[in-house]
Amino acid sequence: MLNLRTLRTADADFDAQFQRVLHWSAETDAAIESRVAEILADVRARGDAAVLDYTARFDGLRAESLQALELTRGELKAAFDGLPAEQARALTQAAERVRRYHERQKQANGESWSYRDEDGTLLGQKVTPLDRVGIYVPGGKAAYPSSVLMNAIPAQVAGVGEIIMVVPTPVRGSVATGGTGGGGSSDKGERNELVLAAAYVAGVHRAFTIGGAQAVAALAYGTATVPRVDKITGPGNAYVASAKKHVFGQVGIDMIAGPSEILVLADGTTPPDWVAMDLFSQAEHDEMAQSILLCPDAGYIAQVREAIERLLPGMPRRDVIRASLEGRGALIQTKSMEEACEISNRIAPEHLEVSSSEPHRWEPLLRHAGAIFLGAYTSESLGDYCAGPNHVLPTSGTARFSSPLGVYDFQKRSSLIEVSEAGAQVLGPIAATLAYGEGLQAHAQAAEFRLKR
Amino acid sequence: MLNLRTLRTADADFDAQFQRVLHWSAETDAAIESRVAEILADVRARGDAAVLDYTARFDGLRAESLQALELTRGELKAAFDGLPAEQARALTQAAERVRRYHERQKQANGESWSYRDEDGTLLGQKVTPLDRVGIYVPGGKAAYPSSVLMNAIPAQVAGVGEIIMVVPTPVRGSVATGGTGGGGSSDKGERNELVLAAAYVAGVHRAFTIGGAQAVAALAYGTATVPRVDKITGPGNAYVASAKKHVFGQVGIDMIAGPSEILVLADGTTPPDWVAMDLFSQAEHDEMAQSILLCPDAGYIAQVREAIERLLPGMPRRDVIRASLEGRGALIQTKSMEEACEISNRIAPEHLEVSSSEPHRWEPLLRHAGAIFLGAYTSESLGDYCAGPNHVLPTSGTARFSSPLGVYDFQKRSSLIEVSEAGAQVLGPIAATLAYGEGLQAHAQAAEFRLKR
Repeated sequence: MLNLRTLRTADADFDAQFQRVLHWSAETDAAIESRVAEILADVRARGDAAVLDYTARFDGLRAESLQALELTRGELKAAFDGLPAEQARALTQAAERVRRYHERQKQANGESWSYRDEDGTLLGQKVTPLDRVGIYVPGGKAAYPSSVLMNAIPAQVAGVGEIIMVVPTPVRGSVATGGTGGGGSSDKGERNELVLAAAYVAGVHRAFTIGGAQAVAALAYGTATVPRVDKITGPGNAYVASAKKHVFGQVGIDMIAGPSEILVLADGTTPPDWVAMDLFSQAEHDEMAQSILLCPDAGYIAQVREAIERLLPGMPRRDVIRASLEGRGALIQTKSMEEACEISNRIAPEHLEVSSSEPHRWEPLLRHAGAIFLGAYTSESLGDYCAGPNHVLPTSGTARFSSPLGVYDFQKRSSLIEVSEAGAQVLGPIAATLAYGEGLQAHAQAAEFRLKR
Repeated sequence: MLNLRTLRTADADFDAQFQRVLHWSAETDAAIESRVAEILADVRARGDAAVLDYTARFDGLRAESLQALELTRGELKAAFDGLPAEQARALTQAAERVRRYHERQKQANGESWSYRDEDGTLLGQKVTPLDRVGIYVPGGKAAYPSSVLMNAIPAQVAGVGEIIMVVPTPVRGSVATGGTGGGGSSDKGERNELVLAAAYVAGVHRAFTIGGAQAVAALAYGTATVPRVDKITGPGNAYVASAKKHVFGQVGIDMIAGPSEILVLADGTTPPDWVAMDLFSQAEHDEMAQSILLCPDAGYIAQVREAIERLLPGMPRRDVIRASLEGRGALIQTKSMEEACEISNRIAPEHLEVSSSEPHRWEPLLRHAGAIFLGAYTSESLGDYCAGPNHVLPTSGTARFSSPLGVYDFQKRSSLIEVSEAGAQVLGPIAATLAYGEGLQAHAQAAEFRLKR
């Protein structure tokens, strides 16, 4: 019997209960912070040598030089060529769809523009790709090839000149024993062939088998071998997250992600098994992941609960799913779909499924969400892998003010201003008046110098 | 005699000299950090009462309640109505031009879009304004009404529901003496009427006379009186900057700004006095501001130097200008305009003037800059106040990866996905293959449930 809580918005203590469900805090660990600061400073000072040292110490991977830890495009291609046909096809098709969506995104929101006003003054904005970006890809069990696609393809579509991937390949058997583990490639550390293949398909230019804070430092500051990048994106463990926060300002970073979340807003028309499996697909990520159902129909909620109980024992990751659902999940009975939409806006979920026969009736009421999945056929997992939109989305309520990873994250804008002689006569007196008002006389005189005497 | 350095790219030690000129580091002060953390925690715990305490302690401004520190729209309007006619007109005209530019920006880069693919699957992105934002406006001598326009107008154009301004109004005569200073309004603290008038013109909804880390905390967490916002923008001192960094994640923030910079790229066709005054207009901000000239013509550089020497004594802020030019300024003789463009890209300046008779010849070569000012008539100061584009720009080389403040900073995006029944048959096998490859079976089954059996 699963201990999954049900709340009702009609209950007097709903708000208090609801707050407890939502509560999550990103604790920062002072020991990690200071360890990371040391590693960053050391890589900044000693470059390649420091990166080699930490890679030997933390990943058990020893190399003569950092060049030896670079993967060639040939190695990436070989990984792709070695995939079973079905995986190769799925990877290629997913990449193609993701690319097509991001090309539309670039057209819609990422092009330069300008106009001339009545005085012939040109005003506009030039949009340019970043020169070089770094993509962090975790090693081990959380290595997701789909994340390689979702980070690299928007960068490629933006026109980034060089995309550098870092991915740790720790030697199996741990550092302490110096063990080399099983398998033919273990002397080079454990590689995830799907990740390498995804890097090939997504157009990654260079790749290094390094990870942790040392890899973030190498990308942010540059070393003799690893070129300095302008922005670092991609998920990582607490050390990586801390390192990214530290180097922010020196380079751009994407958001620091919290646990993943799904909110399903159901009107009771979707088969309950589908909704149960969608809730599982979030819960299976890890125990801190959050799955919530909002529905005005008590009978339907009971059916979903029954489906959950029935389907759970068959899931290979049932222990993780159970822990996530019991710890952070909830089935919430609302008074209406309208109220469900309001509650959804308070949550600002990462993933929002509108599992309804009338999704376009509710969509306009939904103001905050990373991605909105409309209708019964749109399982979150289709969006996670291949529908086209990005799966890197704002978590922990940050959808109130931030957006999915996109082409725009790999571009920047520069304002363009060309004031005509006639325009300078109109603008000069305005600027001078305001500048004198602020006590900035050189600003004022620079404007006045452009006036005809 | 001004001790302003001249460098030549032809010199053997140019790179080393150039690095020294550019070097600037944002030192973080541990004492400030820990004081700010305390203030934030206190405001989070005690709300209004804590904000009142800190406002009394730091600004010498005592009030019965936080409501008493709110400025009404009537008070903002009265400030505007009380301005001299010329200032009122200049403020209105500047606001009108800034608004027009940002409306174009919204049209060009900030609208929702969607399309259906061959299977009838809908993909797109919905763009929505933030619900509520906070704008920090410094008190005292660095209170710039133009910054109120530049922060509030893009938010207003984006359609933000509520714009909350905070601006400290410290009581003259300092806290220690409890002095109330001179002037009729001093019991309420020293108000900058132009700032209040700008808030009126820019459509600020609510305003509080609070500042410092306590104001940032009130906006980020909300108190009984100050509503919680989704994003905080605007410049401030080291306490404000530290507080913004701390609350990042809880709310969105804009970039933390470093000293302001101008780079003038000159082909020798602009009157030297104009260029000299443009360099001054950056240098007069503060001693850490940076003004650099890049030019291939030694004779012209000498003329600009002569103009600087001649004009400097007449400037009211000559001491600040001198300190800035001597400490951080440089005149750099390049081998060509092409090389000047390359060096400009290495600097990635906040403000870039292309002071040339052929600005459109050089503009395509310029990849990184906050704003590009084209041609002799386009003094930076026209852009600072009223040309239309935003004057909040990336500093310290961050134009490599970030953009001017804009409408997009007050919007966020949500992906939209509606997979058709036919689409689910195509996408399902792709998603399932990749999900099984990643060991996420619930993801795979959620996709498979949507396949026709």
